[in-house]
Amino acid sequence: MIDVMFYEVFEEEEREIKERLPTDIRAAFTARTVQEEGGRDLPSKLISIRTQSRIPPKWGHAMKGLLTRSQGYDHVLAFRRESGADIDCGYLENYCARAVAEQAALMMMALLRRLKKQEKNFMAFARDGLTGRECKGRRALVVGVGRIGREIVDIVRGLRMTVKGVDLVPAINDLEYVPLSEGIAWADVVFCALALTEQTEGMLDVRAFKKARQGSVFVNIARGEIAPLEGLKRLLDEGKIAGIGLDVYSQEGLLADSLRARKPANAPEGRMIMDLAGDDRVLLTPHNAFNTKEALEQKVSLTIESVVSYLRKGTFPYPVPIP
Amino acid sequence: MIDVMFYEVFEEEEREIKERLPTDIRAAFTARTVQEEGGRDLPSKLISIRTQSRIPPKWGHAMKGLLTRSQGYDHVLAFRRESGADIDCGYLENYCARAVAEQAALMMMALLRRLKKQEKNFMAFARDGLTGRECKGRRALVVGVGRIGREIVDIVRGLRMTVKGVDLVPAINDLEYVPLSEGIAWADVVFCALALTEQTEGMLDVRAFKKARQGSVFVNIARGEIAPLEGLKRLLDEGKIAGIGLDVYSQEGLLADSLRARKPANAPEGRMIMDLAGDDRVLLTPHNAFNTKEALEQKVSLTIESVVSYLRKGTFPYPVPIP
Repeated sequence: MIDVMFYEVFEEEEREIKERLPTDIRAAFTARTVQEEGGRDLPSKLISIRTQSRIPPKWGHAMKGLLTRSQGYDHVLAFRRESGADIDCGYLENYCARAVAEQAALMMMALLRRLKKQEKNFMAFARDGLTGRECKGRRALVVGVGRIGREIVDIVRGLRMTVKGVDLVPAINDLEYVPLSEGIAWADVVFCALALTEQTEGMLDVRAFKKARQGSVFVNIARGEIAPLEGLKRLLDEGKIAGIGLDVYSQEGLLADSLRARKPANAPEGRMIMDLAGDDRVLLTPHNAFNTKEALEQKVSLTIESVVSYLRKGTFPYPVPIP
Repeated sequence: MIDVMFYEVFEEEEREIKERLPTDIRAAFTARTVQEEGGRDLPSKLISIRTQSRIPPKWGHAMKGLLTRSQGYDHVLAFRRESGADIDCGYLENYCARAVAEQAALMMMALLRRLKKQEKNFMAFARDGLTGRECKGRRALVVGVGRIGREIVDIVRGLRMTVKGVDLVPAINDLEYVPLSEGIAWADVVFCALALTEQTEGMLDVRAFKKARQGSVFVNIARGEIAPLEGLKRLLDEGKIAGIGLDVYSQEGLLADSLRARKPANAPEGRMIMDLAGDDRVLLTPHNAFNTKEALEQKVSLTIESVVSYLRKGTFPYPVPIP
């Protein structure tokens, strides 16, 4: 039996992990999720996933450790809850906050400047309908001012925007915190950087955007479940918001499976996603905001630290807090 | 006869000008260039163009005024030189420096984060080959630190990059100026923000990038003639540079004509452009960096000020300096 099985590993990550993992640790790798691999027999006592694998409940009692190579761990909590298994769970702390925040800022700029349409229109060197908006002087609202949210605040200030925050605990001294509804009515750009909890699920729904400012854009780099897609599509169709940038999706594992199988219609909101993908006002990326060289280096370091610690000492350096 | 004929006007611009032009001034508008319109008879003593119209030399002696609705005026100087006509020429001063600089920054971020490939890969929710690079801590070189260059310096500092400049006159106190070759060997991102002159034409050729840093990207929002396309393509093919963002092109009027006629191969470098447009490492926009709501408002104000001043007093508020 091997010591650790890595699921959802992409090329660059696998290369780095192999290079730096101690040679006495027997590891195997796959780019696929647990469910894509079939998930019949448990391959190792320690399993490492990202956010899209669904662990078969029957594994729960044979597994010893589960390491999610992500900052978010809501999916791990859900698995523990549903399977009733009492296993050790680890996550990776704060390896990619700047990477995610920079992608959020990139999405904002691309939406404000209609980059997708600019590129399309290049083919006819046509400029009608391409008038964009500048960041400087615009208003940004950061909903959820944790590690990632703080970096977004830093970046948008660097772009000479004004910024306000929404959070339960106002932790930054020089940031103005406002209630969500007041913030949305004020902002040109709304960033979702919340953790997914029972309280935040569905929080950014159609009602939340009821008083959204004309022409405002929305960017979600947190979790799809916080801002349901159907609501976003309706807001866009009704002209309540002018652009959407998404790096995350509801039931993302199912969506990813369906897209990889080239059967988008199999996913719960597959058709809607395909409609949105063809819309010039919408920017969709495959949960890739974390993925920079800098973050990858940090991530591989934390992954190796976690795997070595667990296999040698039986504990994770960053254990998932069990509620 | 009308008072002023506006060429190369796009929808949003025409609407704004019509709204704000004094009612006694008779104006006509077209989205097309002078050459696309046929250019047989001079329609008015005052002609207003952007950068892609080619004025027939025979108009030179009947025309009185030529207003280019752009910050650059190299094309106006070329027309004066070639036609030998002694006409009054005006341009628009500093209406879009921030707009252009923000588009340059957007292109940089999109190239560093492989946004084009991210969007494409979304369709299969695939993340291989998508590892990008963060702005924070990276090195930016601004070649040409005039009005636009200064704004680029401001933005990249806001993104926590380090920045150096290249210019004949070191006009910013707290900016380190370096020779071009030293700057290119140092930088992760090279921005071209030079004016086109006899001295700068072809300045950023293959030789200039000989010592370019591995993985560096290049963004040109100034004039295509400064960084010849063939050289850029070669640098990309040889892996000397990792990404190219272009908003401007050599012989841009001809290219625009050919693309609009859906016959790209008719343009001098048309086939090469089409190859580049299909490359994930290349971002092409249709000379649109100036095009924001903020810049448009400022531009229409300056256009109306220039047209009214010329028709009523015979002088432009911002005359093109004749060398």
